[in-house]
Amino acid sequence: MRARELATDYPTVSLDSDALDAARLLAAQKLPGVLVVDADGAPYAVLPASRLVKLLVPAYVVDDPALAAVIDEHHADRLCQALAGRSVADALPPEPHDRTKAPVADADDTALEVAALMARERSPLVAVVDSRDGDRLLGAITASRLLDRLLEVA
Amino acid sequence: MRARELATDYPTVSLDSDALDAARLLAAQKLPGVLVVDADGAPYAVLPASRLVKLLVPAYVVDDPALAAVIDEHHADRLCQALAGRSVADALPPEPHDRTKAPVADADDTALEVAALMARERSPLVAVVDSRDGDRLLGAITASRLLDRLLEVA
Repeated sequence: MRARELATDYPTVSLDSDALDAARLLAAQKLPGVLVVDADGAPYAVLPASRLVKLLVPAYVVDDPALAAVIDEHHADRLCQALAGRSVADALPPEPHDRTKAPVADADDTALEVAALMARERSPLVAVVDSRDGDRLLGAITASRLLDRLLEVA
Repeated sequence: MRARELATDYPTVSLDSDALDAARLLAAQKLPGVLVVDADGAPYAVLPASRLVKLLVPAYVVDDPALAAVIDEHHADRLCQALAGRSVADALPPEPHDRTKAPVADADDTALEVAALMARERSPLVAVVDSRDGDRLLGAITASRLLDRLLEVA
């Protein structure tokens, strides 16, 4: 089984997409993460769902749980306003670092290579490109899809 | 909005569940992670989907991508056999450490507290217990569920 057969269509957002739209996409489709592509359509970053949640919470609150408890409920409910008017690029670190850089598999990689990549990057999904076709994006493989296909042949 | 309202029923597995069944549950329901409960039904660990994938891959392959490429495809397809006959407890580290210990919110926590916990633990889900009812497990909140509810009120 190769990455080519494991890949399925996966929605992407671009760097200049609205960050709020990216959150809506993830929530509506219950995606495990958002796949961000650059201007050429190449995989740029993966934002796991928990990372998108992190964008809503001021850093000082993430670091100090006691602070979260004293912020009033009305304010807490308006968290998503933190994303309003921001692009996906604004919400990303200036350069994708280890934690957000998109893990990319080649179409010819085996299921083991895909699994190892996913495990190493602790990513809920990997993008799949076809190096024989100018690194065209074929789609993505989610962890649950990979497990599902591996369980079929087990 | 409080954790009580955000929580939904979430399937659990116990420490003595079959690890292969846990993988099947995750794959079939496209869960972002497996919620493991102890003998008393209390949240014990969360295994994100990528962590479950990691259990399938020998550690030396995770550490050395080049090795994954030279293992033949037939073997790679049989990855899930690594789970056969193992319990969830076998698949976990001896004591849950930071990376697998279940993040737990109280029913009365605000959405901000839940979001901060999720962000801090980089977990795709948090368990919700009711401290006014003997820490009874009410369910879980996934990152996509949290975003969905926050976007409604934004």
